[in-house]
This record gives sequence, C-alpha cells and structure tokens, in this order.
Amino acid sequence: MKLSRAGEDALIASLLRELPASSKLIGDDCAVVEFRGAKDLLVLKTDCVVGEIHFRPSTDPKLIGWKAMMRPLSDFAAISAVPQFALITLVVPSSGSTTWAKTLYRGLKRAASRFDVRIVGGETSATRGAVVISVSVSGFVEKARSVSRAGGKNGDTLFVTGRLGGSLRGKHLRFVPRIDESRWLTKNFRIHAMMDLSDGLGADLPRLAKASKLGFQIDMKKLPLARGANIDNAVSDGEDYELLFAIAPRDRTRLTRAWRKKFPRLPLTCIGSLTRPLNNSTTQLLSGGYLHFQ
Amino acid sequence: MKLSRAGEDALIASLLRELPASSKLIGDDCAVVEFRGAKDLLVLKTDCVVGEIHFRPSTDPKLIGWKAMMRPLSDFAAISAVPQFALITLVVPSSGSTTWAKTLYRGLKRAASRFDVRIVGGETSATRGAVVISVSVSGFVEKARSVSRAGGKNGDTLFVTGRLGGSLRGKHLRFVPRIDESRWLTKNFRIHAMMDLSDGLGADLPRLAKASKLGFQIDMKKLPLARGANIDNAVSDGEDYELLFAIAPRDRTRLTRAWRKKFPRLPLTCIGSLTRPLNNSTTQLLSGGYLHFQ
Repeated sequence: MKLSRAGEDALIASLLRELPASSKLIGDDCAVVEFRGAKDLLVLKTDCVVGEIHFRPSTDPKLIGWKAMMRPLSDFAAISAVPQFALITLVVPSSGSTTWAKTLYRGLKRAASRFDVRIVGGETSATRGAVVISVSVSGFVEKARSVSRAGGKNGDTLFVTGRLGGSLRGKHLRFVPRIDESRWLTKNFRIHAMMDLSDGLGADLPRLAKASKLGFQIDMKKLPLARGANIDNAVSDGEDYELLFAIAPRDRTRLTRAWRKKFPRLPLTCIGSLTRPLNNSTTQLLSGGYLHFQ
Repeated sequence: MKLSRAGEDALIASLLRELPASSKLIGDDCAVVEFRGAKDLLVLKTDCVVGEIHFRPSTDPKLIGWKAMMRPLSDFAAISAVPQFALITLVVPSSGSTTWAKTLYRGLKRAASRFDVRIVGGETSATRGAVVISVSVSGFVEKARSVSRAGGKNGDTLFVTGRLGGSLRGKHLRFVPRIDESRWLTKNFRIHAMMDLSDGLGADLPRLAKASKLGFQIDMKKLPLARGANIDNAVSDGEDYELLFAIAPRDRTRLTRAWRKKFPRLPLTCIGSLTRPLNNSTTQLLSGGYLHFQ
C-alpha cells in the first residue's frame, strides 16, 4: 500500500498499534510526563513543516520560520502548558542560499522570543530533497492546570476563541498561539477539555468529543467567521490555531464577562455544547453546516 | 553563497552568531537546562538522518531506525545523562511503502527499548523529497555528574573506549551508545571532560581540547584500531560513537583495573594527554598520524 493512499492518519494509526499501551500518546496535542523530583509535569512536542507540502518556494522564509515555531507552541496552548526550550532541526538542499536559511532562522527566533522560549540547540543537514524544518519544544504544566481533550462532561458549554476560516489567505503564516489566553483560562476557571484547532472545527471537534466519550451539538449560525469566510470555511479550512474548550454551563456568564475585560479585542464565542453520545463505537461528524452521524 | 560551499559548520556558526549569548548551546553535545523545582538537570537533544545523505536507499530500514535513535542517545552518553523520552518526526515520500515505514519504526522502537527510552510522541508528514527521520530525546542528569567538553585540566590522561575506524563498513548502523559505560564512569570517577566520537578523533579531540582551552599530545601508535582499520581510518573515518574522556593521571591505574572488571569485553585505551595550549587563538589539529599546529 502506498502512503499517499493510506494517508497520514492511517500511517500514524498503524504505527500506534506497534507501541506499548503505556506510551500511546502520539496523535494527542503534547506528551505530558513526570520529571524526576519535580512537582510540575514535563511537556514535550515536536512538529515539522516541509517545503512544497506546508509552504510554497515563494513564501517569505521569515514567515515560514514563524509558522514552524508557532505550530508546536499552539499545542502547548491546547493543554495550557508553558513552552520554555526549543530545539531546531533544519534540513536544507545544498543548493539553497545561506541568506534564505538565515532569514528563516530570524523568523524562528522572533516567534520563540514572543513567548520567551529559548532556542537551546539544533541540528542542520544537507538534503537532495525538500526543505524540512522540525521544531521540538519542551516546557512545563502544573499538574492541576493540565487540560486534555478527554475531560469534557455531558452538558458542557463549548467555546472557541477568535474567528474561524480562511486561514490560508495569510493567517496561517502569522498567527499567535493562544498561550496567554489558555494560561489565563486555567488560572481562573475549571476547563474540562481543550484543544487547538489545527485541522478545522469539522475535524477537531469530533476528536474532542470522542476523547471525552460524548457527542455534541453546534449552532452553525453562531460560528465566528473570519472576514470573507463562510460556514463551510469555518468548518473545513483548518489552520485556525484557535482554542476550542468545554466548560460547565454555570461558569458561562462569569467567563464571558471576565474574558471581555481581559481580552477585549479577541472574540470568545459559545458555539454549542457537549451531549450524550449516540453510541460508543462511532465518531460523530460535523461538516458543511450539517450534523452527521456515521 | 551556496550552502554546499559554506558547509554545515559554517552555517551553524553563522546562525550561532544570531543567537543571544545565553543560549549558545548549539554545536555542543546536548542542551542542559534547569527544570522548575527539580534537583536534576533537564537534558535535550535532537538529531536527524536524511535519505541519500546518511543512508542509501538499499539500507535495511530497521537499521536506519536503529541509527536514527542511537545517534542522539550517544550524545546523552557524551555528557553522562540518562535518556528517558523520545519524539519522532518521520518525513516520507508519499510514494513510499508503509511496510518500509513500519520496519523503520521497529528499528527506532528496538533502539529506544534497549535503553528504556519511551517513545511518547511524533509527527509524520509527506514530502516530495528525501526521507527525513528526526529524533528528539529528553532526559536528566544529576548536577554533580554532568560532564562537558570544557572541564579538561592540563596533564589529564585521555582515554577512548572501544576501537576506532572503519565504522562505515557496518558499525555505524548497529552501534550501541556508551551510556552504561558513561554512567558508570561518572558514578565512580571524577571525569573532567568527555564527548562522544562522531566525526572522528581527528575532528573531535581538537574540539574537546579547544573547549578546555588546552592542547593535547597523542601517541598515534597506541590508537585502538578496529579490525581492518589503520591509523588514518581511526583518525578520520568518524561515526565511531565511542567515548573520549579526560581524567586526572592519579586515577589512571584504579580506572583501568576497575574498567577491566566491569567491562571485560570493551577495550579502554589511554591514547595521550591534555597539555598546555600553544596559544589561545588557534585550534590544535590532528590528522593523518601527525600533529599539526595551524
């Protein structure tokens, strides 16, 4: 079977079956582990961007660097962790220019310093193929503040930050991960389940619901649309890098008020709620403005 | 300027100049940082292997996976750290086979389990270019046992483990990083400076000496040669993944006796000593059986 047909999800799923049960962490936002003698948890995440897959040859290398750093940092936002250290692997064609590589690196550095992340190591290699920029980030989360996709409760209210859709028109290269927002949320509220929206609400919300063993209902007309985006874009485009989270309905009013005061320029939208699952074996799907059950 | 001419070292050096002084850790074996509230230090390292650069298309993917994991683990050996968690990034052509990827993964897993390292996360991406396998490892080292290249003292005896040269005939795909040996060394002796030999004694020894602000003298006839290798091979081939370390001369006898008892099948060879530097601004070179000063 060719990888192109098998698809990335299938490859990951297939590799996952090879892992011992205790380390089935691939596919979630970050790995969260104990570190000897520390109260906080160690958080680890790696992510990569690949030339001609994730960006075009004409893309400004500074923006490529920005995106390569911010993608794993968005996974830290997803679980309310604080990123601290980054390792960078740069695989570049030997025919490439050092100016290009340096500009890329400036983008990586600027993104890292936006969140006080120290670039503490790295590796470069030549290649005869495409550019690969892989960024590994480590940091911490307090045990009481670590959030996963799995803690959602029946009846929880679902919120998203920001606006959805149309990211490929530019936002995907310039987004700021919702780390400050995520840290504020877990400091002030009990967030039951959370994730960052990287594949689009239509792909990501069912993952959160499935991890929480619940279903969901969404009021599609309430989805906060980015300028020029329609509901389909909001559901399917992906790369929004906004937060999706579940919180008890009784906290809803206090949250929306406090949010407006703390983040007056960033919308926070109630889009629906978590519900009892239809049954345990299927994943509820969301697409194109309708709710499906497969 | 093209990267091929600039060379990898020059690129790293050039990127290094862009980094703030506090984080100039690239180029050393691992990043070693404090982790909030922990007594031990957090150790981070990333490394990658690239198709057609580090291995041939015909190479057994299980061995490629083994090597991809063991390379960063060898850097843990270099500083006497314990590796614990690995993140794997797999960038594969969409025309590749899932069987190939799975076999590669088995090699990664087998290498990780050899040292009780848990694979806790990963990322896959398609590419139109060459295969890239990037492995990020984190772990710990006790403050008192962390060794760098920089602690060598004038008069220290230099030891290497194992035999040098000819690694490309097969050892480079099957080597076992000297983690057990390194941990035993720092548990029982004061190791002043240490590193793993990845680029060959001729490139690596001058780095250790320079980091320690010292020179060196080597008895070339004493170099432990791998079967079929000559002195030139031992100096220049690289990918030995043996330990090179400096220890006070007074510990020499006790060390060699204890070593023979603990690791009877692995040679430990005194190859020379650290000396006063000729001057501060140049790097002493070692090549082809002669000592040079440039």
